[in-house]
Amino acid sequence: MPVFTEYSAASRELRVLPSFAPPLPRLAPQPSASTTEKYEVVIVGAGPAGLMLELLLSRYGLSDKSLLCVDSKPTTLKSGQADGLQPRTLETLKSLGLADEILTEGCQMWQVAFWNPSNDKDKIIERTSIVQDVAVPARFPHEVTIHQGRIERILETDLLRYSKRGVQRNTKLIEVKIDEEGDSEFPVLAEIETEGQKRHVRTKYLVGADGAHSAVRRSMGLKLEGESLDHIWGVVDLVVDTDFPDIRRRCAIHSPAGSVMVIPRERIATGDYLTRLYVQVPGDVNPDSDQQTADSKKTPSTADARARRSQVTQQTIFDNAAAVLKPYYIRPKKDGAVDWWAAYQIGQRVTDNFSVKDSKGVNRVFIAGDACHTHSPKAGQGMNVSMMDSYNLAWKLAYAIHGLTPGGSNGAPDPLLDTYHTERHTIAQQLIEFDRDFSSMFSGKIGASEDGVGGLTHDQFLEVFSRGNGFTSGCGIEYPDNMAVVRDLEDGNNPIKGTNYLSGILRPGRRLLNVRLIRHADGYLRDLQDDFASTGRFRILCLTSSDLLNPDGTSARTLAQLGAVIPRFPQSVLEQVVVHPRLDRDFTWNDLPQDVKQYSEMSFYSGYEMDDVYGIYGVNPTDGALAIVRPDGYIGVIAVLDDVKRVERYLEALIRTV
Amino acid sequence: MPVFTEYSAASRELRVLPSFAPPLPRLAPQPSASTTEKYEVVIVGAGPAGLMLELLLSRYGLSDKSLLCVDSKPTTLKSGQADGLQPRTLETLKSLGLADEILTEGCQMWQVAFWNPSNDKDKIIERTSIVQDVAVPARFPHEVTIHQGRIERILETDLLRYSKRGVQRNTKLIEVKIDEEGDSEFPVLAEIETEGQKRHVRTKYLVGADGAHSAVRRSMGLKLEGESLDHIWGVVDLVVDTDFPDIRRRCAIHSPAGSVMVIPRERIATGDYLTRLYVQVPGDVNPDSDQQTADSKKTPSTADARARRSQVTQQTIFDNAAAVLKPYYIRPKKDGAVDWWAAYQIGQRVTDNFSVKDSKGVNRVFIAGDACHTHSPKAGQGMNVSMMDSYNLAWKLAYAIHGLTPGGSNGAPDPLLDTYHTERHTIAQQLIEFDRDFSSMFSGKIGASEDGVGGLTHDQFLEVFSRGNGFTSGCGIEYPDNMAVVRDLEDGNNPIKGTNYLSGILRPGRRLLNVRLIRHADGYLRDLQDDFASTGRFRILCLTSSDLLNPDGTSARTLAQLGAVIPRFPQSVLEQVVVHPRLDRDFTWNDLPQDVKQYSEMSFYSGYEMDDVYGIYGVNPTDGALAIVRPDGYIGVIAVLDDVKRVERYLEALIRTV
Repeated sequence: MPVFTEYSAASRELRVLPSFAPPLPRLAPQPSASTTEKYEVVIVGAGPAGLMLELLLSRYGLSDKSLLCVDSKPTTLKSGQADGLQPRTLETLKSLGLADEILTEGCQMWQVAFWNPSNDKDKIIERTSIVQDVAVPARFPHEVTIHQGRIERILETDLLRYSKRGVQRNTKLIEVKIDEEGDSEFPVLAEIETEGQKRHVRTKYLVGADGAHSAVRRSMGLKLEGESLDHIWGVVDLVVDTDFPDIRRRCAIHSPAGSVMVIPRERIATGDYLTRLYVQVPGDVNPDSDQQTADSKKTPSTADARARRSQVTQQTIFDNAAAVLKPYYIRPKKDGAVDWWAAYQIGQRVTDNFSVKDSKGVNRVFIAGDACHTHSPKAGQGMNVSMMDSYNLAWKLAYAIHGLTPGGSNGAPDPLLDTYHTERHTIAQQLIEFDRDFSSMFSGKIGASEDGVGGLTHDQFLEVFSRGNGFTSGCGIEYPDNMAVVRDLEDGNNPIKGTNYLSGILRPGRRLLNVRLIRHADGYLRDLQDDFASTGRFRILCLTSSDLLNPDGTSARTLAQLGAVIPRFPQSVLEQVVVHPRLDRDFTWNDLPQDVKQYSEMSFYSGYEMDDVYGIYGVNPTDGALAIVRPDGYIGVIAVLDDVKRVERYLEALIRTV
Repeated sequence: MPVFTEYSAASRELRVLPSFAPPLPRLAPQPSASTTEKYEVVIVGAGPAGLMLELLLSRYGLSDKSLLCVDSKPTTLKSGQADGLQPRTLETLKSLGLADEILTEGCQMWQVAFWNPSNDKDKIIERTSIVQDVAVPARFPHEVTIHQGRIERILETDLLRYSKRGVQRNTKLIEVKIDEEGDSEFPVLAEIETEGQKRHVRTKYLVGADGAHSAVRRSMGLKLEGESLDHIWGVVDLVVDTDFPDIRRRCAIHSPAGSVMVIPRERIATGDYLTRLYVQVPGDVNPDSDQQTADSKKTPSTADARARRSQVTQQTIFDNAAAVLKPYYIRPKKDGAVDWWAAYQIGQRVTDNFSVKDSKGVNRVFIAGDACHTHSPKAGQGMNVSMMDSYNLAWKLAYAIHGLTPGGSNGAPDPLLDTYHTERHTIAQQLIEFDRDFSSMFSGKIGASEDGVGGLTHDQFLEVFSRGNGFTSGCGIEYPDNMAVVRDLEDGNNPIKGTNYLSGILRPGRRLLNVRLIRHADGYLRDLQDDFASTGRFRILCLTSSDLLNPDGTSARTLAQLGAVIPRFPQSVLEQVVVHPRLDRDFTWNDLPQDVKQYSEMSFYSGYEMDDVYGIYGVNPTDGALAIVRPDGYIGVIAVLDDVKRVERYLEALIRTV
């Protein structure tokens, strides 16, 4: 195109890069320069939990000067153990702009097949049923399996757009303690070692995301609660040759010869597809010393544990799988088809406290991920719960550090930081309880025969599986009451009808279900969750009533009041999304309260042309409703449409006014 | 997770990287080492056309030793002119794994609003209608607008995964000629200059993707055909402040004061959204000397052209827009809101030949992109047609170079390379014809009044717009008959019923429309186009008949014959996708012809549970059908189900047998 005159703004050059998430505003002063090494946050461990936390804090605005993440390993994980991502984790990754490669190149796992002993002796086993793997509404109605190392690479690649240092590798934590006398502003004192060189660093907050053998947990003397014994597992990733018909479905196979779990995995460069097989070795053993609970009974001898462990070899895993799958054959497709195999032991345990306070009651040391909870791999939860720990903690830490919370000034405890333990310990407890039920159910033999050999009929098993789906999908998580989850509505004041929260009915403590709607400004058929990106912002979700076009109506009045609330908080921290039900006539911007265009030009939707948004959320279109959605996508509070005071009170407790 | 035994294959370390497209096999010998600088392909120009070509050839297997791309600019484009991507281009980018960022962060343009003079004098203009921007079925039923530089950055970032050198910048072509006497294997001799240093390089093929002022076109003496005069345009990208209600829709605005086209653009880092405005300056001027056609009459004087050009300034563009949008106001949102503005002149012209042959009749020099065709920006076609030129050429060049074609051995002409001109010149001709109609229609005043001031009523305009949608969306492109598009079916032998090809009816020369279906192996709800990734492979699409479960039926016989055809061609070059209609009973792999699992385990689908695949494609489920889909996603040939011979003949003409 022959241009003869051209002008270009300097900022235009940035337009070729992928979008950067905007940092949160900072009201607190920047930390002053210092000769000793000081940070605002130190993260120990760069697995999925640690990397997720570092990435989020970097995006929210913490610079390399204020944030350090160390990891004892020399590089990112090459031989990851975890491989499953739940629908809720996929929603979270999508809200960070990180889901695309995972969705496209991971293995989308849509179905589960159950195989059980057959009454027909020739068949030996038979497929009892195939069900959808994800039975609850979710934006991505399937799980994804993919190498954990790839998830870490995706997180780290993105991190390096925000942080020059990234992860400081080859660096391990020796010890951490709270030393307020040495420096009350940076009271956490950690000794770390990089390639033999020890040094001390100080920080305001330290997060231990350092795995099942967490040095942070040990240093802080946190206790493990739960089972006193471990189970032994074998796992193998390989390209199989088999005539078993469901090899590309997740399978729970119970045969007279034992149990195997099949997890289909992603396609690899050869064009072949990986399969993961899990085999559990019967009997329990003692946990490692740093994993023991107070009441560990140590009944099995150490020699016994060693004997059991030595049973697990690549050959025994294959032999086990081959025996369970009979009369079908299964074998490695060719030499070198085995990608990875491992044996490990694990029990169901949760740490009693997810944070440790200083003498003033300020939360100073947190733990996240496997450092908090260990459990079996059966339900594919580990990596998900770990990343979601960080997702919960990150915005709270950022708000505290950036001076965006009303509490926490002058070294006083910031109550928002208490909600991390409150919320995530609850989930961790549920996780190990679910895992205990699911594991024992899985290990018990289930017959197609009426008496249900092993105690459970297949129908009972299926029932537990479906009930557990809210939990295993991550979509049914509900945080308990706390300052960030306010549920104290009297019945008369609750604008929400219905209790089927899994299907989308709005409920404080639960994530906002995605719906599809049409944007007024441009006719874009859009996913609502895309307006709730994980940029650290709170959002007002205003579901207007059907009187929106009446300048004296409830909707117009509410929007005007909200328009007065938004500027009371630091700029950009509070965004507004507006949805309208079917109205009695066509309209343009000029027919609407001006606050709609001012605050929601590109987040104003018709909520009935695609999905029935009001029906799904349990809101009567005649009445409307208000909700505040937290930076992590969970609903914080709900109010009737004109009770703007209620949402304002909720926000004032969490965000400093200006 | 406490692992006590672990084994990991070396290849596992690669699993953390994004997938690499597998290269095509190479039957031809590698070029021997030489002291002079020799390549198999030299590309001149690294805009969208050149980058797309280099990326595709690199993915297909050409190494830096065999492929060179030079560009005279020092860096990637920062101030791009083009900004629109059609649905078909989006499908293509998706098939390359490059669409995600564009879809997520570009501006999805779903609707077009038409504004025309109002009979109500106070209104001045009024919205006559809003229609969907894309009125034909497409996987992505919208356009995307995004900075051209960002597209180039996405292509180049991916290129650097396959090529260490990437683009050799600061390097311009001085001259190119065909010199068979000097070296008959590398007969193209190009003189290039890098930062003042001139050198000669030899190559088998050279592609000029060097824009409207193409030095390759000039060197080769190719002629331009089309309009003898140019139009002058002004364009500005900025963040606007306006009360015009449709600023986030694509708009064609005709007012008594003139015409403006509004193109909504992507969100930028400030959180604001860009808008592009196009303004055409009335009257025509002479093209630049290297753009003149044979019959250029040069009636307007050079002084006149200079005067017209000097009319276009940032201020006149604003003034023009402000006058056209009255009574609404429009202005830059604040100082610095203008991102880029430019004025340029352009006419509708096509080069007479897209390739030049040597004395033996071998195509040696090709041109692609703006070097072949120039036209107005109104229909948002430029970048799309340019990239699709390369998409058409790349696999043909790769097949020729890799020795995968039956022709072209011993220096004989390879007829497959003739099809580039045949196919793309046809499209370029259609493009400028469409653009001429569309432009004059756009420039003519259209009234809401009955007599249609300016000649065309709004309804007529709308009709042309809708009819043009097949073309502007890229989804209605149909390549003419040639060895790669075989249509010679007699009526009695045509398994396809229907002629509404835009809606998906199978037709040689048209792209395969995406459909949604369920995969047998794992229950994955999948887009069929994802099995037609742009990896350079041909695919057999076998739509089986409803007798699939009958071992003696037509489907089983056909699949067995296809199973014998596939191994006749070089390994991996021919893939098979199988779809079945509703069958009369449930089945597992063992009930199917074994060829289904052997060649299509992960590409075997039920074609009725999601979309009605047979209905959409015009295939009777009782009869089934066969189609060959080319590496670029266009259908090459269609046959009745058991006429495997017909598809085999088609393939034998294009691919060497082994």
